[in-house]
Amino acid sequence: METWDAIRARRNVRTYQDRPITAEDLDRILEAARRSPSSSNQQRWDFVVVTDRERLRELAKVWTYGQHVASSAATVALLARDTSDPDEQASIQYDLGQASMSMMIAAADLGIGSCHSAVRDQLLARELLGHPGDVRCEVLIGFGYPADRPLNPISKPNRRPFDEVVHRERW
Amino acid sequence: METWDAIRARRNVRTYQDRPITAEDLDRILEAARRSPSSSNQQRWDFVVVTDRERLRELAKVWTYGQHVASSAATVALLARDTSDPDEQASIQYDLGQASMSMMIAAADLGIGSCHSAVRDQLLARELLGHPGDVRCEVLIGFGYPADRPLNPISKPNRRPFDEVVHRERW
Repeated sequence: METWDAIRARRNVRTYQDRPITAEDLDRILEAARRSPSSSNQQRWDFVVVTDRERLRELAKVWTYGQHVASSAATVALLARDTSDPDEQASIQYDLGQASMSMMIAAADLGIGSCHSAVRDQLLARELLGHPGDVRCEVLIGFGYPADRPLNPISKPNRRPFDEVVHRERW
Repeated sequence: METWDAIRARRNVRTYQDRPITAEDLDRILEAARRSPSSSNQQRWDFVVVTDRERLRELAKVWTYGQHVASSAATVALLARDTSDPDEQASIQYDLGQASMSMMIAAADLGIGSCHSAVRDQLLARELLGHPGDVRCEVLIGFGYPADRPLNPISKPNRRPFDEVVHRERW
């Protein structure tokens, strides 16, 4: 798909077809994350990709609004070093946002929808994913083929108007 | 450009041709930012796009390593509400990361390179951009046509190995 179409076609998808994502396509999505830029190229992230249905069902319980994870074809957990330094935390989050967007655009290009889930129950996440104690699961992104309709460029996104959000030369 | 090529072609570009970005292309890059997902669709961001050469030269002084801003064809400043709540700050940063990546991929698709700059001198940023006191300039992204070589998919990116950064089912 053309890049500009993929960017405009990406949308939150919470209900998925019962159809797996091929290993090749899943690796491409993960490769997009791996290639993302990060502060001083530190790459302070790890990705756990989950496709096992039973584990996905359990993983969906880490947040009230994460039910879409249960029926996703695959969910990627984004993990990073746990830190009490707010500046480091902010910098890591910015980089995780970049990696997330890269994955979601790569997925949209393949007709695959995506949706975030926060991680409130950190103990359950650790039990399921098995990451070390100094690492924290920051966000989950569920992926799957949309159950409702294919991804197509959205002409009128539900966003603040362009001229409100964009300022020219000065605020 | 095909999406997967644009994702793989994006790289930090710090030296630019003396060639403007058309208004249409610049608006597309900003539209990519506007369309980005955000926590509960809050869109806690504003974008100031700067193309005036004198202002770009001044803006380049907000950080020691931001000199590329001076010669960029355009620089987009990403601004958000200043907050002392670390959780809100982390959430905003994640969303700004998503908007940044979306812009950089949209730019790569057009053959336009990009590079981040941090913002250390907040007073200077405010003087130049004119944003309100409760808003903070979080990051700058310079854009321009690469002076060195065109953007092409990178076969061996300088990143941690795939099998180190990606875990299957569990850490």
